[in-house]
Amino acid sequence: MNRIITIGREFGSGGRDLGLLLAEKLGIAYYDKEIITGIAEKTSLAEQYVQQVVERRPSHWFPFATGHNFYPNLNLNPLQEQTLSIYHEQCRIIKEMAAKSDCILVGRCADYILQEKKPFRIFVYAPLEERMARCRKRLPEQEKVSDRELKQHILSIDKNRAAYYRFYTGQVWGDKVNYDFCANTASCPVEKLASAVLAMLP
Amino acid sequence: MNRIITIGREFGSGGRDLGLLLAEKLGIAYYDKEIITGIAEKTSLAEQYVQQVVERRPSHWFPFATGHNFYPNLNLNPLQEQTLSIYHEQCRIIKEMAAKSDCILVGRCADYILQEKKPFRIFVYAPLEERMARCRKRLPEQEKVSDRELKQHILSIDKNRAAYYRFYTGQVWGDKVNYDFCANTASCPVEKLASAVLAMLP
Repeated sequence: MNRIITIGREFGSGGRDLGLLLAEKLGIAYYDKEIITGIAEKTSLAEQYVQQVVERRPSHWFPFATGHNFYPNLNLNPLQEQTLSIYHEQCRIIKEMAAKSDCILVGRCADYILQEKKPFRIFVYAPLEERMARCRKRLPEQEKVSDRELKQHILSIDKNRAAYYRFYTGQVWGDKVNYDFCANTASCPVEKLASAVLAMLP
Repeated sequence: MNRIITIGREFGSGGRDLGLLLAEKLGIAYYDKEIITGIAEKTSLAEQYVQQVVERRPSHWFPFATGHNFYPNLNLNPLQEQTLSIYHEQCRIIKEMAAKSDCILVGRCADYILQEKKPFRIFVYAPLEERMARCRKRLPEQEKVSDRELKQHILSIDKNRAAYYRFYTGQVWGDKVNYDFCANTASCPVEKLASAVLAMLP
């Protein structure tokens, strides 16, 4: 069975950096935005639109049930149907990626979708101030954002990720029981963290 | 400043094994039951009695406040006074241990008590079934305990630890935000986990 590593991450905590570094060290595939690109290709929807859909809170549209436990024969409106079909396409693509070769998958409920393949499930987090500082470093200089705006942006993305995860998995996003390893990236540089993960891998 | 590592742990998740192995690998002191022995020596109370007090839920006795935020001039009864003085003795002993040399401290709110020394804070956990299996391995053969009894014992100890931690720190026991590194010991043998910690240490 292929070696699969999934990374859940609070926005701005360095999950992408960790994933890229691990992929490089292990010489295996890395999938992040590629999942969105794959869905767009398969559904003929614009990539930006798919990105919007998967970043919105699905519970706004489905107040009656949760994605992992749908009642059959529900009358869904076209928007609800499209949202669900995008999720199902995402599941298919993630399973395809995991079947193809060893890989690292960031976000998108991959830990849950691939649970039968027993992935090594990482979650990274950090205090808000540290994540704000990390985000600031990446912002183009000309892009002026106040601390308040940046904070709101980060919290809003995390809120959506938590709701998305909850809706489709029935589990609590970031709850350590759903992961093999949770690390506070404020306490440890990504380089050291990658070495720690390598030491822990089965 | 001395290198301090604190380990919080769900009962039966292998926190003690990890601590002992790390202490051996790093060649530094390891404190677990020694904290209780120290309190007993300083307070002239029996070790077993101290153990009982620190394992009970303090909130039973202090329904009006929390240990980290006491109102002054409260009229405490002798039992409440003794419970608090045992905690204060514990704080003194833990600070003494941390000041003496590099060390590993297991449990007893050490992560909170030593927060100014910036310890590396680990929390280990595992699914209940795994912890039951680990406990069974340690039970003397003649000691017959049903699964139900063992489960109740584990859950009760964890409940007390959570309440004790909450009472004296105002924080949620096992909540990843209070730790640098949380590991599911069911996913990784203690030997590998120790190597991971060594890779992460500042």
